[in-house]
Amino acid sequence: MSLYAKHINILLKAVRAVQERTFFAQYPDHPKAYGANAISLGKEAYKSSLGKPFEQLLQGPNEGTSGEEQSPFTGEQLGVSYPTYTVDTLIERAEATQKQWRNLPIGERAGILIESLERSTERFHEIALATQHTTGQSYVMSFQASGPHAADRALEALAIGYQELTRFPEKVKWVKPMGKRQAHLDKTFKAIPKGLGLVIGCATFPTWNTLPGLYANLITGNPSIVKPHPHSVLPIAIYIAELQKVLQENGFDPQIVQLAVDSSDQLITKELAEHPAIKLIDFTGSTQFGEYIESLPNKTVFTEKAGVNSVIIDSAKDMREVMRNLAFSVCLYSGQMCTAPQNFFIPATGVKTDAEHMSYEQVVDLFQNEVAALALHPKMGAGTLGALQNESTLKRAQNAKNMEGNVVLEAPTVKSEEFAKARIFAPTIIEVDADKAELYNQELFGPILLVIKTKDTEHSVELAQKLVREKGALTCAVYCSDSAKADAITDAMNEVFVPVTLNLTGFWFVNQHAAFSDFHGTGGTPAGNASYADPSFVNRRFVWIGNRTPSK
Amino acid sequence: MSLYAKHINILLKAVRAVQERTFFAQYPDHPKAYGANAISLGKEAYKSSLGKPFEQLLQGPNEGTSGEEQSPFTGEQLGVSYPTYTVDTLIERAEATQKQWRNLPIGERAGILIESLERSTERFHEIALATQHTTGQSYVMSFQASGPHAADRALEALAIGYQELTRFPEKVKWVKPMGKRQAHLDKTFKAIPKGLGLVIGCATFPTWNTLPGLYANLITGNPSIVKPHPHSVLPIAIYIAELQKVLQENGFDPQIVQLAVDSSDQLITKELAEHPAIKLIDFTGSTQFGEYIESLPNKTVFTEKAGVNSVIIDSAKDMREVMRNLAFSVCLYSGQMCTAPQNFFIPATGVKTDAEHMSYEQVVDLFQNEVAALALHPKMGAGTLGALQNESTLKRAQNAKNMEGNVVLEAPTVKSEEFAKARIFAPTIIEVDADKAELYNQELFGPILLVIKTKDTEHSVELAQKLVREKGALTCAVYCSDSAKADAITDAMNEVFVPVTLNLTGFWFVNQHAAFSDFHGTGGTPAGNASYADPSFVNRRFVWIGNRTPSK
Repeated sequence: MSLYAKHINILLKAVRAVQERTFFAQYPDHPKAYGANAISLGKEAYKSSLGKPFEQLLQGPNEGTSGEEQSPFTGEQLGVSYPTYTVDTLIERAEATQKQWRNLPIGERAGILIESLERSTERFHEIALATQHTTGQSYVMSFQASGPHAADRALEALAIGYQELTRFPEKVKWVKPMGKRQAHLDKTFKAIPKGLGLVIGCATFPTWNTLPGLYANLITGNPSIVKPHPHSVLPIAIYIAELQKVLQENGFDPQIVQLAVDSSDQLITKELAEHPAIKLIDFTGSTQFGEYIESLPNKTVFTEKAGVNSVIIDSAKDMREVMRNLAFSVCLYSGQMCTAPQNFFIPATGVKTDAEHMSYEQVVDLFQNEVAALALHPKMGAGTLGALQNESTLKRAQNAKNMEGNVVLEAPTVKSEEFAKARIFAPTIIEVDADKAELYNQELFGPILLVIKTKDTEHSVELAQKLVREKGALTCAVYCSDSAKADAITDAMNEVFVPVTLNLTGFWFVNQHAAFSDFHGTGGTPAGNASYADPSFVNRRFVWIGNRTPSK
Repeated sequence: MSLYAKHINILLKAVRAVQERTFFAQYPDHPKAYGANAISLGKEAYKSSLGKPFEQLLQGPNEGTSGEEQSPFTGEQLGVSYPTYTVDTLIERAEATQKQWRNLPIGERAGILIESLERSTERFHEIALATQHTTGQSYVMSFQASGPHAADRALEALAIGYQELTRFPEKVKWVKPMGKRQAHLDKTFKAIPKGLGLVIGCATFPTWNTLPGLYANLITGNPSIVKPHPHSVLPIAIYIAELQKVLQENGFDPQIVQLAVDSSDQLITKELAEHPAIKLIDFTGSTQFGEYIESLPNKTVFTEKAGVNSVIIDSAKDMREVMRNLAFSVCLYSGQMCTAPQNFFIPATGVKTDAEHMSYEQVVDLFQNEVAALALHPKMGAGTLGALQNESTLKRAQNAKNMEGNVVLEAPTVKSEEFAKARIFAPTIIEVDADKAELYNQELFGPILLVIKTKDTEHSVELAQKLVREKGALTCAVYCSDSAKADAITDAMNEVFVPVTLNLTGFWFVNQHAAFSDFHGTGGTPAGNASYADPSFVNRRFVWIGNRTPSK
């Protein structure tokens, strides 16, 4: 049975899901869903991979090694060394696979790609530990983000790719009446892949932000090179090893996908990106580097850069519920998610709730209380915060209390019971004046929250809009009990291309974007030009060609 | 009855057509299809518009006038003067219409846009004369290209836009099982237009290359400014006047679309293109200006630039039939179509036909014979050639015989019976060595044809591929009787993103790309980054937004 036939049901379910946008997940996100021994086997596999060369890649003889990962939880080096290759070698090997991969029927490509995801599920717990000890995410978050959620995003890109690649008929008979004559032409339509793809990963979400572009490239026929952040290699290396194995087992060149590891003191990203054979670039990272990538001529580029997410508070049923929800959103992975809120716009006139009118001060106090309570919660605090991925985030967090503005919450000291050396730092909350835009119109990556005291909600919306126009954003949380006003705020934020999550409380959070239903990013703000996974995310990776010949 | 209801059948037929890609034309391309008096009424309307201000636009008080059109057939000034506006005025007025247009339901937008096309049909013959006397196209070609073919391309863009805008559900209930709990969210999905559009026209196809981008912008909710080439304004001015009338009659601001006329000595194109409010730019014109447009940051850009189209001759059933077909392709509008072939790759070893093996010299001789015969044909010649749009094309054509290389055909003198002063010049054919790439790796816009003597067909393909990679192309005609070899040539050309028209003879020509079936351009070559009308042509003009709120 071909892999296409084997996985046709998954494919069809995924295609239907991207179309309907109701709930769908091919990969359950409960850590226990993958078998009774999965956790311990994963732990074993992870431990046994430490302190030695990573030898699972099928990329041929290497030209060097590199490895500099260090756990934000233990401070220890992982000690895994990866094979390295020059850019010329990587490109040459990728080019050698182009014909094979592009000529494979689309269904067969889909079958292989789904098989690779299915195989990777067996290593989700190993990937979770690799993610935890490179990114600083908690174990559960690492498991979810790098395992099922990333795999679902990959499947989503693949499904929408399959849908787009098959949307036109392969052959048509075209007959044009021309007076007494007719023109008869046989036409064939083909989706031609653009070329080689480069997917540039980031340190905080090494698989979640890499798999969508990679699977979008592969389903559309473009062999790809993945350039991970040198501090977060292992999680994506495991996925790529599985993909290469599936390719090889099925008679294909495993180098249809390659891992291009480099080191912090000798980065190869620019050399790869500027290589004329690279036609497609997916990038997640800083605004500065993202803008450089976007400026490269003759490349099709998909970026996710920095952004500043806002919360606009106008009114709510129960402000404690609101603040409890938001406290989790901001504490989760210490604000290191691209979807985490940073700026809280609260009117000086206060906020109406079902029970009372709360003053601005009461609202801010409730906020800092809930954040402090969660951070200091003996069971929840350290686990929710995770660890800071790198030293500069830590320094920024430590210095936050010295920022201009009024310290509403000085980060309480939180210790991890499990990891005494964890790079952990609770959120600091600073109150800044609405007229000090230079203070809050910037991304302060990590656990730093700004409360901006505005004249009223209109003022909040105006400032939040301006912020999106200048700096971009991925999310906006709005609390407003008046439905007409809520609609107006939603329209205003949508107009600057940011989705609104309205009146969210309980156990779902603004940070969470579900595959197959929520678009991640819109492509319309300075935070990035792409969206996981709208139709453009895949159909810019190939071109439609129609060939013609007279009918016989 | 709303215009949506009135035109729902046209809309649905067009949506089905872009999907199925079999023959469809909403607008018949026979000049007689629009009523018995249409031709004479059109002539009357055209004549009465000459020598006076064009007062049909609904754009408010103007800030100047401009008009410099001159007929390539008569040499006379049209004398039509158009209202002009500063860039600030144009932008300000366009911005004032944004809310109204974007908030209109998609079906209503489609209804208005289709109504505008239906109304324009009543002026197709007037548009034809306006096109003839600005572009130099023959009357019939002007009629077809600027009338029905342009309107069909507009409808095509509108149809695929409608399809894309309605592809996701407007509302879904999303329920995620989470252990004992569930998350319940109501989600809404909206397509948010990117902003203001600018459509920059060219002198040779003032409506055909302008309407697709304009209607793609409008159906996706983006008010637009059309900046025509100052030498070809009248044809598009008529379309815009009709569009504005339909908008106004239905209670909308007619300035949802505006015509921005400028003059050769004071072009406003760059000022418009660089204005931060302009988010979308459609451009047809030179490579140099197109590359400038593509380099502008924070714009979504659709370009059609110069290209060099090749013919690869390997073998054929009947070479006379081939050359007759190609002679028409190269004579039609004197090679001023972006789809016209320029470079003819013919193997030195000659060409196999069903009847005989023809030497290279015989093939070249047949080619020049057929071209000369058509150009000099008393009934067909002048009408097929039309006139040269501008003086630099004429100068280039006149100088062609002095090019390095061997003159195979020195342009025979052709006179138009109807227009004694027509700027007419027949094709020159030059034979150049395959190793003189600098001679044939360039666009020689107008009636200049190059025969390149190659070692064999493989050599021809190699040179044609290289040419596409460096200079781009829109079409490639291939003649090859061996089907395996033909497939290989097709694959090779498709690989560089050029469609192949194989073994075409009779009364259809490689230059002709039919709306709803043939993509025009692929977006994959240096000849342009866009394609009329693949899904990317419309869905890069808006972004998908998903808003969420807890279900009640």
